[in-house]
Amino acid sequence: MSRAFNFSAGPAGLPEAVLQQAQEELLEWQGERASVMEISHRGKAFIACAEQAEHDLRKLLDVPPDYAVLFLQGGATQHFAQIPMNLAAPGQAADYLLTGSWSLKALSEAGPYVDAQSIASSEGDGFVDIPDAQAWSVRADAAYLHYTPNETIHGVAYDYVPEAGAVPLVADYSSSILSAPLDVRRFGLIYAGAQKNIGPSGLLLMIIRRDLLERTGQARARIFQYAAHAKEGSMLNTPPTFAWYLAGLVFKWLKQQGGLSAIARINAEKAELLYRTIDESAGFYRNPVAKRARSVMNVPFTLHDPELDVAFLEQSKAAGLLALKGHKLVGGMRASLYNAMPLAGVKALTEFMTEFARRHG
Amino acid sequence: MSRAFNFSAGPAGLPEAVLQQAQEELLEWQGERASVMEISHRGKAFIACAEQAEHDLRKLLDVPPDYAVLFLQGGATQHFAQIPMNLAAPGQAADYLLTGSWSLKALSEAGPYVDAQSIASSEGDGFVDIPDAQAWSVRADAAYLHYTPNETIHGVAYDYVPEAGAVPLVADYSSSILSAPLDVRRFGLIYAGAQKNIGPSGLLLMIIRRDLLERTGQARARIFQYAAHAKEGSMLNTPPTFAWYLAGLVFKWLKQQGGLSAIARINAEKAELLYRTIDESAGFYRNPVAKRARSVMNVPFTLHDPELDVAFLEQSKAAGLLALKGHKLVGGMRASLYNAMPLAGVKALTEFMTEFARRHG
Repeated sequence: MSRAFNFSAGPAGLPEAVLQQAQEELLEWQGERASVMEISHRGKAFIACAEQAEHDLRKLLDVPPDYAVLFLQGGATQHFAQIPMNLAAPGQAADYLLTGSWSLKALSEAGPYVDAQSIASSEGDGFVDIPDAQAWSVRADAAYLHYTPNETIHGVAYDYVPEAGAVPLVADYSSSILSAPLDVRRFGLIYAGAQKNIGPSGLLLMIIRRDLLERTGQARARIFQYAAHAKEGSMLNTPPTFAWYLAGLVFKWLKQQGGLSAIARINAEKAELLYRTIDESAGFYRNPVAKRARSVMNVPFTLHDPELDVAFLEQSKAAGLLALKGHKLVGGMRASLYNAMPLAGVKALTEFMTEFARRHG
Repeated sequence: MSRAFNFSAGPAGLPEAVLQQAQEELLEWQGERASVMEISHRGKAFIACAEQAEHDLRKLLDVPPDYAVLFLQGGATQHFAQIPMNLAAPGQAADYLLTGSWSLKALSEAGPYVDAQSIASSEGDGFVDIPDAQAWSVRADAAYLHYTPNETIHGVAYDYVPEAGAVPLVADYSSSILSAPLDVRRFGLIYAGAQKNIGPSGLLLMIIRRDLLERTGQARARIFQYAAHAKEGSMLNTPPTFAWYLAGLVFKWLKQQGGLSAIARINAEKAELLYRTIDESAGFYRNPVAKRARSVMNVPFTLHDPELDVAFLEQSKAAGLLALKGHKLVGGMRASLYNAMPLAGVKALTEFMTEFARRHG
């Protein structure tokens, strides 16, 4: 056997070069005579590794100095709750744009802490579009506006950055961070679980405008205070060091690919090829999302006859195309095309799809 | 260069056989054609891996069926805060035994959630002993009694299990779990950061009596509810899959060593050898802890002349004895002797110490 093209939505495939380097140095890292996962997070060697990762990330995303970069735990879900604790007074207004399962979950987890309200939602049409930029307005006393630039399950993505005036914009970028350049200055807080475009699961990346660290927020333990994490360089407690190290290798790999503009071009080409294959299949395959809102990262699609699903999954797996089963909420198939997926993988997938349609059409 | 004897307090050394297996299968795990860190946590292959880890842990610790085993994130520090949220009503009494930095921190992080009080403390004598079992009593209305069986920084360990009657006993076992058998039935809740005796940092293991999952606790998001994690098999959100997998390999390795009784014998021999070397050094080395309270896992010691510290650290490192610098709070040296440290490592350390004392005495 050998490694195959992995379309998993997350934990997702990592760049093979990153895994190879990690493998080579797994028992002895640099001159440490130990694994990177066996050394103190407070020692010089790991601190240098951690700082280099932050430095490379800042370069990649052009993060301004008035933003802190944090490496945390708990996944996006924990921070659905922790963000209101930090940014809002108890019961304060907090506004949400709903475009799929993940923004719904963000709203739900915020419930115990704020007056969390949906100010626009595409739930009525089954989450196949984004709200128009003119169709909603933010409450003036809102602590923040939260949205999900890319919905991993529904395959829906914004083609604009919401404008919230003086209200800070908070974005769960878990499934599209680092897939293309973004203007960090438009945001108050960006956060992302690592397990799609950054590294292994168990690490959460946060980019937060420093003035937001000054907010009083709600009574909470120090471990839940972003300001305390920022002050301690994300080492308020023992961080997930191996995941942080791997994220650093991914950042270096991205720089070697030419940075985010270069990877964005490849990502656009991958998505364009797959959507074209779907759209030109004469109805054999179908993606329900409005064209302006189609995700470049996650492409859900159905087969015209669901009885073919099992054959499609068996044969695609045999052809070295892994993890194409769709999320149970939407059914059918899903191909996730994160940065680590090469164009060759999408070519192999679309050739398989065309041939499968020919045989079963 | 080659791997050396690593006395790090945490993240700590892992069994070399575990790292070798992880290295071999890092790019292709089982028949998955992908790394274990690149596959869905909800797929059959990872679920089987996760369940096997829990099964092996239950065997090792003889965990009764009325206890749930959880694999969580956030480190012990987060759970210093999350445990009161789950086990106590807002402002309810919660009692703490203080024997070092970690129990102090547990008390402090609980502050926003409960009436957390110290009912016995060895702080007055500099944390070099444990409270007598008869010297304290638990408040009848306490939600729980919290203690720290082994203090990583001060090298202090209990030689008894506190008796709290009907009040559930909560133990932060981060630095001594799996180092010897323990009677789970004596505890309401056991928790441990993985990075000493379990696996890499970023994973937290919890063993909780199921009736405690029924407690209402405090208003909080679902992600902070242990009952929700238990219901979802620790997959309420994406768990740190690679750390979970590695923990499973460590559990298997422990079984191969003969289980906890066997490893406890080796641990006792390691500690006995090091303490004897210290005690028989005619004052060249000194450990300040009362003999009944000496930790088998973490052995802090000072040199009679602190001006020798730099030479000791340089020469020990050159001799392949890593990470012996003591914690800044207590100074001097510290040797952590977790399960992965072989007796040969402690022999090498004590021979080095005896020779160093001879040359500098």
